[in-house]
Amino acid sequence: MQLTLADLAEQIGARLTQGGDIIIQGVNTLTAAGPSDVSFLANDSYRRHLANTQAAAVIVAPEQAEDVAGVALLADNPYLAFARATQLFDNRPHVAAGVHPTAVVAGTAQLADDVRVAANVVIGEHVYIGAGSEIGPGTVIGDHCTLGQNCRLAANVTLYHDVALGDRCTVHSGAVLGADGFGFAPDAGRWHKIAQLGGVRIGNDVEIGANTCVDRGALEDTVIADGAILDNLIQVAHNVSIGEGTAIAACAGIAGSTQVGAGCTLAGGVGLSGHLSIADGTHVAAMALISKSIDKPGVYASGTAQMPLKEWRRSATRFRQLDSMAKRLQQLEKRQEGEA
Amino acid sequence: MQLTLADLAEQIGARLTQGGDIIIQGVNTLTAAGPSDVSFLANDSYRRHLANTQAAAVIVAPEQAEDVAGVALLADNPYLAFARATQLFDNRPHVAAGVHPTAVVAGTAQLADDVRVAANVVIGEHVYIGAGSEIGPGTVIGDHCTLGQNCRLAANVTLYHDVALGDRCTVHSGAVLGADGFGFAPDAGRWHKIAQLGGVRIGNDVEIGANTCVDRGALEDTVIADGAILDNLIQVAHNVSIGEGTAIAACAGIAGSTQVGAGCTLAGGVGLSGHLSIADGTHVAAMALISKSIDKPGVYASGTAQMPLKEWRRSATRFRQLDSMAKRLQQLEKRQEGEA
Amino acid sequence: MQLTLADLAEQIGARLTQGGDIIIQGVNTLTAAGPSDVSFLANDSYRRHLANTQAAAVIVAPEQAEDVAGVALLADNPYLAFARATQLFDNRPHVAAGVHPTAVVAGTAQLADDVRVAANVVIGEHVYIGAGSEIGPGTVIGDHCTLGQNCRLAANVTLYHDVALGDRCTVHSGAVLGADGFGFAPDAGRWHKIAQLGGVRIGNDVEIGANTCVDRGALEDTVIADGAILDNLIQVAHNVSIGEGTAIAACAGIAGSTQVGAGCTLAGGVGLSGHLSIADGTHVAAMALISKSIDKPGVYASGTAQMPLKEWRRSATRFRQLDSMAKRLQQLEKRQEGEA
Repeated sequence: MQLTLADLAEQIGARLTQGGDIIIQGVNTLTAAGPSDVSFLANDSYRRHLANTQAAAVIVAPEQAEDVAGVALLADNPYLAFARATQLFDNRPHVAAGVHPTAVVAGTAQLADDVRVAANVVIGEHVYIGAGSEIGPGTVIGDHCTLGQNCRLAANVTLYHDVALGDRCTVHSGAVLGADGFGFAPDAGRWHKIAQLGGVRIGNDVEIGANTCVDRGALEDTVIADGAILDNLIQVAHNVSIGEGTAIAACAGIAGSTQVGAGCTLAGGVGLSGHLSIADGTHVAAMALISKSIDKPGVYASGTAQMPLKEWRRSATRFRQLDSMAKRLQQLEKRQEGEA
Repeated sequence: MQLTLADLAEQIGARLTQGGDIIIQGVNTLTAAGPSDVSFLANDSYRRHLANTQAAAVIVAPEQAEDVAGVALLADNPYLAFARATQLFDNRPHVAAGVHPTAVVAGTAQLADDVRVAANVVIGEHVYIGAGSEIGPGTVIGDHCTLGQNCRLAANVTLYHDVALGDRCTVHSGAVLGADGFGFAPDAGRWHKIAQLGGVRIGNDVEIGANTCVDRGALEDTVIADGAILDNLIQVAHNVSIGEGTAIAACAGIAGSTQVGAGCTLAGGVGLSGHLSIADGTHVAAMALISKSIDKPGVYASGTAQMPLKEWRRSATRFRQLDSMAKRLQQLEKRQEGEA
Repeated sequence: MQLTLADLAEQIGARLTQGGDIIIQGVNTLTAAGPSDVSFLANDSYRRHLANTQAAAVIVAPEQAEDVAGVALLADNPYLAFARATQLFDNRPHVAAGVHPTAVVAGTAQLADDVRVAANVVIGEHVYIGAGSEIGPGTVIGDHCTLGQNCRLAANVTLYHDVALGDRCTVHSGAVLGADGFGFAPDAGRWHKIAQLGGVRIGNDVEIGANTCVDRGALEDTVIADGAILDNLIQVAHNVSIGEGTAIAACAGIAGSTQVGAGCTLAGGVGLSGHLSIADGTHVAAMALISKSIDKPGVYASGTAQMPLKEWRRSATRFRQLDSMAKRLQQLEKRQEGEA
């Protein structure tokens, strides 16, 4: 892949100051870029690298144009322009055209003409897959699933039955969509399984990370709205709903029936208890536990900050005494007031 | 699937007040149920929906019979009766009868006559699979594994060698049973692997969630007792034992050799350190870390509660100073006592 | 597998006091060992079992030789000697020799002569696999991957394209190496994907646990150095680097671009925020969150210790008031000083 800097500028929506004929063959960091790479500055802490970069051109905000020694590509949102540049050099291999002879496709499945199906894929009854979608090796798609157009399922993905994906969804390897929600009725010391009769409904432009689980609903569906992005190793329990454009980092877990609003961000390892409602635009800091609904958007946290273990032990011991400490403090205040 | 309300009542062990001839075609929530659905009330907070539900009948406790506008199905444990109702409408597709021609089954494997084996399954040497069990597409079963009757392995499950499951176990996609425990001996800055020679032994009626890992034992087996239920993305390390009927929610992790008693519940994201013993009937709150054995059943927690980030930062800063605060408090008390 | 005690002693580097002709058929714990097993004492808390063990011989440190009733195998590092003994009895089945007829291997892939490829494996274009390596059933290896010698990929592993492993690496089932890093540029309420153009580079003697994810780099590679060992269900985000011999326990998560030094240990459930630098020889306690770089090796922790829920609630409530408590304490001190 190669293109002129002028072409690249046009395709990423940036304004070029000079050098439109330079041939660009890649995109890289300021320090690693070579003379046929384009680079970018989206974070001020890397500004010191501008002087020495070998990059053919650097994507920057207009106000930083003067700091660029060589060619500047001006963009109001340099990080977005950079994202577009990476897409021009996207080197992910595609599944080969057609349906691989080792794939097992049910007779009732309907695949658009140009769907690509890799080796050892298994596609169940009454599945529908839209145009331009591709299915990686070893992936299993259960009965009655529907995939929109231009979806990309990587290798070894599993979709149970009745899972619906919109258009342009990406699902990474090891992700499991539609496994049974964790529903059991206790009786006399035993757990009785509640058959999980709902499905999973996922909108357009959703990304699901590797080894992430989205369970099917108990009665109604588990729902992920358009444009939501989920990282790896995330648990989405039954009947959760995730709002439009919400981003969830790795290792987060969302318990059953919780509704996460639109435009939220959950940092890595966050836990949301079940049956909560989280307002649009809420942000949760890494590894925080949210156990009560949030109706006011903002940034929330829980836990304590890192400490050397020895000092932590002392604080942790005192934490157990906190209530007593608070009461003794009140006592002192009372006495002192009495004396005053 | 459809049946009369009278039949349904009998099969779920509920008493019917009227309307035995009504045809029931599904089960749903009070708000979503239609005139051929049965619904239920197991949680008082949904009682307000009783008045307006379209459900053909509602499963309730006897004392709530009068609150039901239409037909009531009386059950001492409404949630259990509901669970049974869902099972009547269980719509999970079965693997097709027989062994799919693409499955690779070792010559020494013994499969009961009616075992169902899906496409691309691989079954190793000396495996035994009991009657009524079914194995989903892409699942791999290592040498010398044994599965009891009526087990259900979903798609893309992996069993290493020497993994034993009892009867009626369900294992969801992506689960890995029998991978090596994490055992290494350090020497001169290098880790020397301890071959993991034990296996995994799982009782009857156990459910293992998607992408959950149960490692094989180092020398003896890792053990999960009858009726235990494990959600998704759980780590069960080598030589752990989990007691009868214990329930573990998603993203929990149990370190090596810890013994979890019977009838325990671990909420989501709980961590148990290694070599602990946890009493029968212990409950651990979400995301708590248990680093000491528990000999007295009860509910345990750790961590702190959610706060707006700004306020949290102040508390977290003070947490580091807690020991000094406690000492200063003592100082004040001493002085005040001296003055009194 | 069986060998004389003399042979075993030689192979594990231990000194034998007597009984070189005894036939050894296994290795087991002090309590479970039978008369043809060798056992070991590496942890003083098990010393009480020395008297009653049925083991043919016990690996101990020289200073404990006298405590052994029967035959002692003296080793300076008994745990290391034990590790070596387990390797002698390693019973993991090997993949059958050759390439299974159901495997799908691209024409441009180069496999050393003795590489073993199991059923339903898929190997992409321009893959190279070194001598002595074996690939378990259902594993998928993307284009342009390279594996060194004597690597062992278990069943249902997924390698995306451009993933490089050194020699003697083990990758467990469900692990996903090379999935896209979680990189998106926000613009006007939408996330724009940053194509992840880097790869994954893994050194020699690395172990990757079941269902662990190592994402590919955004521009440069994600790197795991020689001798690092990773347990199950770990998230390694894009552009992370993990130093030589670092050990990471299950359920840990490392956010993007963080550099973990050599010889570190991260306990279970640890979280490292992104863009940090962690000094060589740092140890982090279970479930701690590290959100600032660590330049001084030591042991670090965060969180609070386990408590009965009722007491925990009181402490957690006071934690929210900590800043106010601290200020009131200062107030009291000031007044008291004024009075003195």
